[in-house]
Amino acid sequence: MSQEMFEKGLEIRREVVGAEYVDRSLAQADDFSRDFQHLVTEYCWGAAWGRDALTRRDRSLLNLVMLGALNRSHEFKLHLRGALRNGCTKDEIQDTLIQLAIYAGIPAGVEAFRLAREVFDAVEAEEGGAA
Amino acid sequence: MSQEMFEKGLEIRREVVGAEYVDRSLAQADDFSRDFQHLVTEYCWGAAWGRDALTRRDRSLLNLVMLGALNRSHEFKLHLRGALRNGCTKDEIQDTLIQLAIYAGIPAGVEAFRLAREVFDAVEAEEGGAA
Amino acid sequence: MSQEMFEKGLEIRREVVGAEYVDRSLAQADDFSRDFQHLVTEYCWGAAWGRDALTRRDRSLLNLVMLGALNRSHEFKLHLRGALRNGCTKDEIQDTLIQLAIYAGIPAGVEAFRLAREVFDAVEAEEGGAA
Amino acid sequence: MSQEMFEKGLEIRREVVGAEYVDRSLAQADDFSRDFQHLVTEYCWGAAWGRDALTRRDRSLLNLVMLGALNRSHEFKLHLRGALRNGCTKDEIQDTLIQLAIYAGIPAGVEAFRLAREVFDAVEAEEGGAA
Amino acid sequence: MSQEMFEKGLEIRREVVGAEYVDRSLAQADDFSRDFQHLVTEYCWGAAWGRDALTRRDRSLLNLVMLGALNRSHEFKLHLRGALRNGCTKDEIQDTLIQLAIYAGIPAGVEAFRLAREVFDAVEAEEGGAA
Amino acid sequence: MSQEMFEKGLEIRREVVGAEYVDRSLAQADDFSRDFQHLVTEYCWGAAWGRDALTRRDRSLLNLVMLGALNRSHEFKLHLRGALRNGCTKDEIQDTLIQLAIYAGIPAGVEAFRLAREVFDAVEAEEGGAA
Repeated sequence: MSQEMFEKGLEIRREVVGAEYVDRSLAQADDFSRDFQHLVTEYCWGAAWGRDALTRRDRSLLNLVMLGALNRSHEFKLHLRGALRNGCTKDEIQDTLIQLAIYAGIPAGVEAFRLAREVFDAVEAEEGGAA
Repeated sequence: MSQEMFEKGLEIRREVVGAEYVDRSLAQADDFSRDFQHLVTEYCWGAAWGRDALTRRDRSLLNLVMLGALNRSHEFKLHLRGALRNGCTKDEIQDTLIQLAIYAGIPAGVEAFRLAREVFDAVEAEEGGAA
Repeated sequence: MSQEMFEKGLEIRREVVGAEYVDRSLAQADDFSRDFQHLVTEYCWGAAWGRDALTRRDRSLLNLVMLGALNRSHEFKLHLRGALRNGCTKDEIQDTLIQLAIYAGIPAGVEAFRLAREVFDAVEAEEGGAA
Repeated sequence: MSQEMFEKGLEIRREVVGAEYVDRSLAQADDFSRDFQHLVTEYCWGAAWGRDALTRRDRSLLNLVMLGALNRSHEFKLHLRGALRNGCTKDEIQDTLIQLAIYAGIPAGVEAFRLAREVFDAVEAEEGGAA
Repeated sequence: MSQEMFEKGLEIRREVVGAEYVDRSLAQADDFSRDFQHLVTEYCWGAAWGRDALTRRDRSLLNLVMLGALNRSHEFKLHLRGALRNGCTKDEIQDTLIQLAIYAGIPAGVEAFRLAREVFDAVEAEEGGAA
Repeated sequence: MSQEMFEKGLEIRREVVGAEYVDRSLAQADDFSRDFQHLVTEYCWGAAWGRDALTRRDRSLLNLVMLGALNRSHEFKLHLRGALRNGCTKDEIQDTLIQLAIYAGIPAGVEAFRLAREVFDAVEAEEGGAA
């Protein structure tokens, strides 16, 4: 393992997905899941997200259409929150999900809009609750 | 059909995919394929690409990861040329395909890099030939 | 948008999916989801379902195998109810799901039969409750 | 193996895919592929296609959307010829592929229309040559 | 149907998935699902699992990556329990899921590790409760 | 990058896929593809294939079903040669592809058996030519 790449990935991952979530994932890792958690942090977040030619906003939008097309609802919702953290506007997300619906099919779009509403409602409730 | 949306889609489609290719697709359309060609133009290029909240460069990058994840090689190559036309740099495309490889799997990435090389070689040959 | 195609799609959508569900979807639409709801109604229900060469019964069966192969459970259940509304018999649905299991794999079939049982049970309960 | 189911499947398979193709597939089968050829004949063509509640025309249309959604081009073309043999009209196939494009995404539709044109052209050439 | 292959499949299915689960599935089968239950038992468990060149441990690992790649969570969990019954160690399963994550993409891996934890926790609780 | 993991991955990759192919891939890498080639070598071949709990024979069989399910024909053929290099017998590969056909669907199996025949024929021709 490259410690440097891991550290870089850890920093990005905490900023995008939320420090609390990431720290809990790593803390809860046991002998079965620890290597995978490290792999994700180093390669996915360090080696891919850590590259320079795209912004985090770009990567968030790419992830939304990939996770929508691949039908991974749990990760889709996590990355929709990440997209908001990375500064994507609701209008940009709307256009992104319509692009998804056309290219990956209407059912992928229907699912994505349903999940997005769940996330927006939850985020609003949290922000309201925190006020 | 909305004639207005069709016209809007036709203009965008010709600019992104290339006027020659699009005009040939529409001219060659027969009773079997004509309605579909019109649907693609109006719905995909008008109603999706014609929206305002993302740039064409953004949409090109989204399409590359979707077409790579969905394993549609022919369309991938067409849209890689479109990405170049829309001003995406090679560095941006490289980062996009690495993001694809991590999220959709290494074989999706291997295929995408192979197809990209084919397109780059063909484009270079055409530009050389045109000089 | 073509108002005519939207109206045609709306009528078909209400008849197949259920007027209550569709009216609620459209009424609940906000700035984020309204354009997508209109797109689905116009293109999916107007431009595709509104064509003449297949019956609604045919389209329901096609949708069941597509939604099963694409692994979209929520939409699968919605369209299974639509299939019943469109006059598909249980025997036809059974043969359709066995065809799905062979071509898309046994796990797709297992999931489809499980979801079908949920829908049949719910429909029976509703009809019992309405008696 | 059930000899009876195998015989039933063999008959249907020869009628739908063409006797020449099927006989060659079975004759060319070696120790590596023989069991699989028998499994396909018995299980896919006997146990699924041999059922009563759907017509062959119905099954052909189901297969076109499944093979299109699953992105299996070789089998798609084989079953498009089967669809013609089973009496599906070009209009029915057109509506089927448009339904596919909406639910499985525009690139699935573009690919399906391209493959269909190849098959139609080949069939016409053969019929012309046989005249 | 081949009664012999059905019997062979039934025995293997009961040993791998658990006799209680299988007996309940078959007992609950009604006119809609009975043929499918028999098809699964005969072909999937008899004609595939009943072959000699791979061990049950091998087949369990193959199934985990296929079900993970195909995104079938319910079946994945069932077969993870089967893998434990077939003698797969946690270390072997860990390596299998990491192989899945690389080839089918990080989201497939994240989901698989999450489901595995659910299964391990449930198995531990059952064993604790049975002590 | 971890130089140690890269070296480990490079050694395994050359042994499984063939030194000539790998050396050519790395030698031909340009500014666009070099980082990806390194990522594949380090991450896929070092961090996944380099783990201890599964044998190379196990991993080859896992890859065949994943690449078959994911519909990646080019990589499937490459890894079928790798499977032979890793000591998988034809009987094991046959059982593996039948397992694939049942779980990922008959068309995935048909395609896999067709590609396998191509590889076996090519390997035989090479060995004949080398005699």
